[in-house]
Amino acid sequence: MIDVLVSEVGPRDGLQSVQRVMPTEAKHRWIAALAAAGLREIEVGSFVSPKLLPQMADCEDVVREARKIDGLTVLALAPNLKGAQRGLAAGVHKLSFPVSASREHSMRNIRMTPEQAVEQVRAACELCKGVAAVEVGISTAFGCSIEGAVSEDWVIQLAVSLVEAGAESVGLSDTAGVANPVQVKRMFARLQRELGDRAGAAHFHNTRGQGLANVVAALDAGVTTFDASQAGLGGCPYAPGATGNIVTEDLVSLLESMGLRTGVDLGRLLAAREILTEALPGEPLYGYVRTA
Amino acid sequence: MIDVLVSEVGPRDGLQSVQRVMPTEAKHRWIAALAAAGLREIEVGSFVSPKLLPQMADCEDVVREARKIDGLTVLALAPNLKGAQRGLAAGVHKLSFPVSASREHSMRNIRMTPEQAVEQVRAACELCKGVAAVEVGISTAFGCSIEGAVSEDWVIQLAVSLVEAGAESVGLSDTAGVANPVQVKRMFARLQRELGDRAGAAHFHNTRGQGLANVVAALDAGVTTFDASQAGLGGCPYAPGATGNIVTEDLVSLLESMGLRTGVDLGRLLAAREILTEALPGEPLYGYVRTA
Repeated sequence: MIDVLVSEVGPRDGLQSVQRVMPTEAKHRWIAALAAAGLREIEVGSFVSPKLLPQMADCEDVVREARKIDGLTVLALAPNLKGAQRGLAAGVHKLSFPVSASREHSMRNIRMTPEQAVEQVRAACELCKGVAAVEVGISTAFGCSIEGAVSEDWVIQLAVSLVEAGAESVGLSDTAGVANPVQVKRMFARLQRELGDRAGAAHFHNTRGQGLANVVAALDAGVTTFDASQAGLGGCPYAPGATGNIVTEDLVSLLESMGLRTGVDLGRLLAAREILTEALPGEPLYGYVRTA
Repeated sequence: MIDVLVSEVGPRDGLQSVQRVMPTEAKHRWIAALAAAGLREIEVGSFVSPKLLPQMADCEDVVREARKIDGLTVLALAPNLKGAQRGLAAGVHKLSFPVSASREHSMRNIRMTPEQAVEQVRAACELCKGVAAVEVGISTAFGCSIEGAVSEDWVIQLAVSLVEAGAESVGLSDTAGVANPVQVKRMFARLQRELGDRAGAAHFHNTRGQGLANVVAALDAGVTTFDASQAGLGGCPYAPGATGNIVTEDLVSLLESMGLRTGVDLGRLLAAREILTEALPGEPLYGYVRTA
């Protein structure tokens, strides 16, 4: 029994912004170690073009290997239908699609308007029917570093459209690291009211050090799934201290300290981190619990 | 009008654990810059024996200089009545006394039992009557790294005794960096019920990265005064990433993002940080907002 699902996104969201390509064999070991620590859902990679992102060229291999792990939900990102087809062929349990609330971010990220992205999710849900689930985390849901403020009404409207298009769950992502606890509580409460059990994960970045503060607010609003990245991988290497995703180790420590069961063994989770230290020498790794 | 009082403890709690003695002139400039940024209360030093803590040998000078700043509440720590006398002679507005809930921590810190510390506060309140206020933050209120768990009933009982002894306010300090948001909310709610407007500040350390998460929980319980240290000074230099106090810049950024007015100008606060960089070369400085 767990109270909160910690969804590990390091192998996708984390590695995506790491220049050095992690060897496929090391990815296999890392994902196995994360699962052995008790993580039940891992986003293992992205079915993006290998030309765009050489780090993700081995995504098929990584998915196939991860599928051998008992009890693990294997998730991968697909930026388009071609990616979805590759994902299904490799045997993912779930595909995540990028949909951005900010029009400008959406164009730059996937060269589609948000409305076109919703239509793509609809087509993907058709394609995946009976084989894999489709989930969406709405990017820039709390604000955008290009456009600035994003309308909350629009974010909720987009979430409703995505569920109508067939998404199994729709969460909210603080891509720009600008969310604050008051906004987080208000937005997730509204998402839950509108989507019921289709309301999805909270995905926070730690840019201003407010990641775990936002987790407390999201818990208050009833969120039970949180994305996180081991060692806060995905940080901006030229801005020390500016981590990317919230750190899985710190999140697990916070939740367990609050009496919430995550099913994750902190000692084994820290052991999995050693694989990163070895496979990505020189890459900045974050987290307080590791040091404490 | 402010909604939340940010009480800067860097010149005391921060510098206390810094080996290199900061020149008195730099302390003057730093405190003036912090006040100019809008901080209305600063704990400027500790009236501890200069033999024990050479960093604090200039505490009289620092208090006298700080007293010249219009509108600033000048606070200093006194470990005993001799320290209180020195503080009063120098002209402090407020004295803070260390009282620890953990018996073992209390003995090691001030060589008194918690009960003896309460009696000392009573004597200090007599001494200060009509001249300066006495406040207490109960150390190890959320757990102790020596004794482990600390009884919540005992902490509250201690807080009530301290108010009866004459303390103007009694807050709770997470000296060991072990507090979690559920506990924080429960304890501060109880403190407020028992002490009313004598319930004092929340003082969090960021050892496990949960400092700001605990702030969100304390706000929920109605806390309106938070201690913080510029650049998270007070961290453990041999454990990078393990900061001491929560970082004032990050706290102000969090509170203001939540729509709570602190009266602090973040730009000027970051400018004050430059004095630290210059006066304490090589000292690790923390904080996300500075980087972001």
